[in-house]
Amino acid sequence: MTFNLATALRESRLSHPGKPLCHIGDLTVTYDRVDEASGRVAATLRGLGLRRGAKVAVQLPNVPQFLFTYYGILKAGLVMVPLNPLLKAPEIAYHLQDSEAELLIAYEDFAAEAVKGAELAGGVGTYVVHPPGSDRRIAGTRPYDELYAADDTGEMAPTSADDTAVLLYTSGTTGRPKGAELTHFQLHMNCTVSGELFGFRPDDISLAVLPLFHVFGLSSVLNMAVRHGGTLALVPRFETGAVLDALERHRCTVFAGVPTMYAALLQADTGTRDLGALRVGVSGGAAMPGEVIRAFEEKFPGVVILEGYGLSETASTATFNISAEQRKVLSIGKPIWGVEVRVVDASGNELPPGPEHVGEILVRGHNVMKGYYRRPEETAETLRDGWLHTGDLGHRDEDGYFFIVDRKKDLVIRGGYNVYPREVEEVLHTHPAVAEAAVIGRPDDRLGEEVVAVVSLKRGTTATAEDLTAHCKERLAAYKYPREIRIVAELPKGPTGKILKKALRAG
Amino acid sequence: MTFNLATALRESRLSHPGKPLCHIGDLTVTYDRVDEASGRVAATLRGLGLRRGAKVAVQLPNVPQFLFTYYGILKAGLVMVPLNPLLKAPEIAYHLQDSEAELLIAYEDFAAEAVKGAELAGGVGTYVVHPPGSDRRIAGTRPYDELYAADDTGEMAPTSADDTAVLLYTSGTTGRPKGAELTHFQLHMNCTVSGELFGFRPDDISLAVLPLFHVFGLSSVLNMAVRHGGTLALVPRFETGAVLDALERHRCTVFAGVPTMYAALLQADTGTRDLGALRVGVSGGAAMPGEVIRAFEEKFPGVVILEGYGLSETASTATFNISAEQRKVLSIGKPIWGVEVRVVDASGNELPPGPEHVGEILVRGHNVMKGYYRRPEETAETLRDGWLHTGDLGHRDEDGYFFIVDRKKDLVIRGGYNVYPREVEEVLHTHPAVAEAAVIGRPDDRLGEEVVAVVSLKRGTTATAEDLTAHCKERLAAYKYPREIRIVAELPKGPTGKILKKALRAG
Repeated sequence: MTFNLATALRESRLSHPGKPLCHIGDLTVTYDRVDEASGRVAATLRGLGLRRGAKVAVQLPNVPQFLFTYYGILKAGLVMVPLNPLLKAPEIAYHLQDSEAELLIAYEDFAAEAVKGAELAGGVGTYVVHPPGSDRRIAGTRPYDELYAADDTGEMAPTSADDTAVLLYTSGTTGRPKGAELTHFQLHMNCTVSGELFGFRPDDISLAVLPLFHVFGLSSVLNMAVRHGGTLALVPRFETGAVLDALERHRCTVFAGVPTMYAALLQADTGTRDLGALRVGVSGGAAMPGEVIRAFEEKFPGVVILEGYGLSETASTATFNISAEQRKVLSIGKPIWGVEVRVVDASGNELPPGPEHVGEILVRGHNVMKGYYRRPEETAETLRDGWLHTGDLGHRDEDGYFFIVDRKKDLVIRGGYNVYPREVEEVLHTHPAVAEAAVIGRPDDRLGEEVVAVVSLKRGTTATAEDLTAHCKERLAAYKYPREIRIVAELPKGPTGKILKKALRAG
Repeated sequence: MTFNLATALRESRLSHPGKPLCHIGDLTVTYDRVDEASGRVAATLRGLGLRRGAKVAVQLPNVPQFLFTYYGILKAGLVMVPLNPLLKAPEIAYHLQDSEAELLIAYEDFAAEAVKGAELAGGVGTYVVHPPGSDRRIAGTRPYDELYAADDTGEMAPTSADDTAVLLYTSGTTGRPKGAELTHFQLHMNCTVSGELFGFRPDDISLAVLPLFHVFGLSSVLNMAVRHGGTLALVPRFETGAVLDALERHRCTVFAGVPTMYAALLQADTGTRDLGALRVGVSGGAAMPGEVIRAFEEKFPGVVILEGYGLSETASTATFNISAEQRKVLSIGKPIWGVEVRVVDASGNELPPGPEHVGEILVRGHNVMKGYYRRPEETAETLRDGWLHTGDLGHRDEDGYFFIVDRKKDLVIRGGYNVYPREVEEVLHTHPAVAEAAVIGRPDDRLGEEVVAVVSLKRGTTATAEDLTAHCKERLAAYKYPREIRIVAELPKGPTGKILKKALRAG
């Protein structure tokens, strides 16, 4: 019953010798190379005396070393703690201490903060990835290449299916970030089942611009491709031009992104580019405005957008719209194989179908985390009898499709009435000038909360707050339309491109 | 990370509403019915106060109640202990006590021994399955139908992937039977991966004559069909006529059996029967004589025999010949997805390819048991660093195919030379009169062991021991050919039809 998630890498290498696992710029890295390089990293890490289950923090953008490190850690029987390269020293120190990481692997461009963070955490040993051609060396760190020192033995640690493989810090929109323990089994099942759902094939080429340190990129992009023997086109940072270049050059067939990425691509001038290979756009991370789906599929014929839903705690996917024929636009789809989803009221009773029965979304199955690392209380609160309490509000229909109305904590309660920001955002998106929209609550003495919208406009358009207010007033009940509309250049976003409502509320 | 093996039943029911899961005689039982009936059994078992992980012994032939009971136990978060219905009371008592079973489910025809066994074990509560039409009631037991008392709640216990689902007693050719702990994950992976290998499809109809209480039937027949949404044709006991009837009537596409079953079908008069639907014969449990494969495929055109290898401890399959194009006759094939196989010498060093490098076969991967229940010493001896020591001797070739030469304990050492019984058996099988052959060692003062063959002849043929000796002498080195050949009517066989060498040695 030993099972190591890195098995997928080994098996895909055996099935597809010499095949590219990823492209990045002009460089192509094969399955063989990733298997060998990660074997060296694993052997070196073992040689450093890290005992089974020790944590290694990895603060890398989407570069091949992310893959070598990830599989190296797994093969050595260690646990990867992926971190956002943009974290600042105190944040890095917090994550290192909370996860009890014994090593940090950082990237040259962000090494200054990493070094400070590692020091603050009591002197965690740090290896730095220097990009090709760089001869910088950073005091107090070792170059990543030293992790290739040992020979690849081909060995994989005989971990158990339920052993933790990845400690994934949740974006932490409330409280301090917590490490969700994701197991070898859970991550394996998620990419296996999800890939089967939309028919991910070995000849698929998937654009990897979602950060691999985030669950969506790690599970639905990297693990997915490796599990099914596909190929990735790595793009280290979301820029419309770079993404379009990679889509065209590598003839990508699959693109996974968050709604803001689709919205940005929609606005881009694609000119004479040939993006005809693209067949599927997987969307998740936030609700996709129906208008964006329609417009995107019109602009890129042959592409179908399939929306899913998941959390760090569900190793990425929990529900999915599996095909153009079976999807329901605005729905998050149905639970994936082996996963149960429920909508419950405040007392935990299951609610019947119908949009009037909004309750908390609960998830149970192979995709649910083991728990939050060293946080028994928060774990017990979130996981009850196997059911993950997502904190998302939604409902289901008679056909078993689920709909998210909003995050429980994003809900605005105005004068005793529930206002679901997403509903208001959908209306804002139907205005021709609106590029991005986020609706939040603002404390109000009389009503408890007041509805506020923060909006950015499409290039070359104009609209005033009054125009938008009028647009909403026409289409929404009186208690719902935003009393204040702020027009900004761009909305603040998290690492995947998800709009950060917390920052908006603070602002 | 909860995962219950019964998930496959639920998911296949949802994907194929109203579809038959099994046929038996004139009766057809749908997925819906098995899901509902097992839900009732689960709820009733929970109502009896059995706590999570409690063991329930099941002593049933291949009847629908086996399925209701199996999935009922899984859904309730209990552990199934499948037992051979032919066990005698003291054997039953041993298994009940060794497994700490809290309940026994038996079949009317064998209930007398079951009742005695349950008493000997200290009064284990016993439910008896009465076949349709029977109105017998057996004192001291309850009728199985009482297990349908509770309503199906649709609930499945949130077990973990690594939780034990089945305690499978190994045939115990040496020592007392030991319970191999097979997990939810392990059993799920085995039927998933193996089914993908030879392309088991939802429209496949698999003949289920291998006993479901044995790993081969449980995993490669029952779990396989349910996991992939196929259908079973249940045959409670191997009789050539009954098997041929079921193959024809239900237009079976897949047949899984042991070599003796293939040999029996080969000798049967199939007359005008239409067995044209049959496409795959899966063979395992013992080495398949090359001659039988050739003759079987000649007699049944369109069928390909795919030989695999596994043990109770590997949740059925460890290696497999996946297709006619990729198989090597006489080889057990290559390791299945996620499984590693090695050949090692007495010191544990891996041996190079080549038939001259015979050593013990080791297996590691998701298919290896958790351990032997309450036997830490035997577990530690068998499982070392994740590697299962199979006790089988074999070698591999340059292409990664493995070959079993024999069971380690079946090896005959004659005057210091290793004689692999299988090699001698292969030679005996090339004689036109030989139906079955088993070669064993007999203690010998001078040589340590002497080579003995026990043989049964095909109907309508004759051959003397001298004829067979001459046949072997011509084809084998002097130290290998059998000095004694016993001709018998039939060889003793275990529950799957595997020849019992232990009984031959004792006889």
